[in-house]
Amino acid sequence: MLSTIAIEEKILGKNDELAALNRTRFDAAGVFVVTLSGSPGGGKTSLLERIVPRLAPGWRVAVIEGDVATARDGERIAALGVPVAQIVTNGTCHLNAGMVARALDRAGVLDADLLFLENVGNLVCPAAFGLGEHERVVVMGATEGEDKPLKYPAMFRKADAMVLNKVDLAAFTPVDLDAFETYARQVRPGLPVFRTSCTTDEGIEEWIAWLTDRRQSWRATPSAR
Amino acid sequence: MLSTIAIEEKILGKNDELAALNRTRFDAAGVFVVTLSGSPGGGKTSLLERIVPRLAPGWRVAVIEGDVATARDGERIAALGVPVAQIVTNGTCHLNAGMVARALDRAGVLDADLLFLENVGNLVCPAAFGLGEHERVVVMGATEGEDKPLKYPAMFRKADAMVLNKVDLAAFTPVDLDAFETYARQVRPGLPVFRTSCTTDEGIEEWIAWLTDRRQSWRATPSAR
Repeated sequence: MLSTIAIEEKILGKNDELAALNRTRFDAAGVFVVTLSGSPGGGKTSLLERIVPRLAPGWRVAVIEGDVATARDGERIAALGVPVAQIVTNGTCHLNAGMVARALDRAGVLDADLLFLENVGNLVCPAAFGLGEHERVVVMGATEGEDKPLKYPAMFRKADAMVLNKVDLAAFTPVDLDAFETYARQVRPGLPVFRTSCTTDEGIEEWIAWLTDRRQSWRATPSAR
Repeated sequence: MLSTIAIEEKILGKNDELAALNRTRFDAAGVFVVTLSGSPGGGKTSLLERIVPRLAPGWRVAVIEGDVATARDGERIAALGVPVAQIVTNGTCHLNAGMVARALDRAGVLDADLLFLENVGNLVCPAAFGLGEHERVVVMGATEGEDKPLKYPAMFRKADAMVLNKVDLAAFTPVDLDAFETYARQVRPGLPVFRTSCTTDEGIEEWIAWLTDRRQSWRATPSAR
């Protein structure tokens, strides 16, 4: 169920306008859309591998994967048996709304109840390009260090939640998880934070509960449909 | 000894031309220049904290730090007692040659025997912007996963060496360090790799030996001066 899209031509039009069009399509189709962004190797794909099988019995889940090169992440998600569209940006450092728009025509994507957009691994550039999603989640590896929200503030300023992943490794590093949260909320007051581990399963259920709750709120909003 | 440079205006001129000018200045001043690039939180600053005190007795060392926001890394290096210029890009996702050119006028930078340029944490964009350096080192955290060279090939294609850091954490994660090296050399045949840990000190001496050797080779090249 993996399909691959190579982005070769220059995407035309303003990103924000295309993002608003995407949002209209998501709302019309009844698809709740969550973007995952963060540094390379923070665990975005691994988290999807953890949560998609738990969500899939109740919901139709689909994923759009964004990568600079290779369809490796798309292949990992396709192995879960859900529809995946792999966008290969051929060097571009972030997804943009036009790339996502093209991927929405791929089989199964707009039939989903919940669609994940996994951005290119990059803590800087994706912050500037809204995709039309309903929620933006920044995924951080605890091993990256607690100062990252201060050093890369744009991504946190735009985030609706932070998943602080790999917390099982924190004990073996000097990272201060409380300071990590404090700094993130210094940039984005009130930011919900989920401390997770794909190894121990810590925090996975709490994050799923938040996703479920956010989707319920969206469905309850008349303007959303 | 920390000085901060805020990049506000648009840097004019082509990056490659400015990089060539930087190289001319480095060679004329007798400064050997090494750029460190890689994802956020891979350990670039921590590695400098490890190696600068060991290099400093024999060599004059200086550092130019590049960050999207804050002078935190510059402050960490300044605490080592060597000249540091902190470039704050105010959102720009990579250093460019023009930013570096401006920092070269800061006290002590061109008096160094060895100058490190620490790029913005980003595994994508910095690959496209040469700074005039003599050697480019990509610094990876082992916890980022062995597939990263294949997924972000441009950075590895341009690299002269890879420092595979945080190897002390590898035992607690599914990462395959041999595959990490294999993939990196698939992208960049013959790439020297140093497996390091700032916690256990593993590999630090080997990497210093490589830096020393590369600097000797540069000094032995008539055209370099």
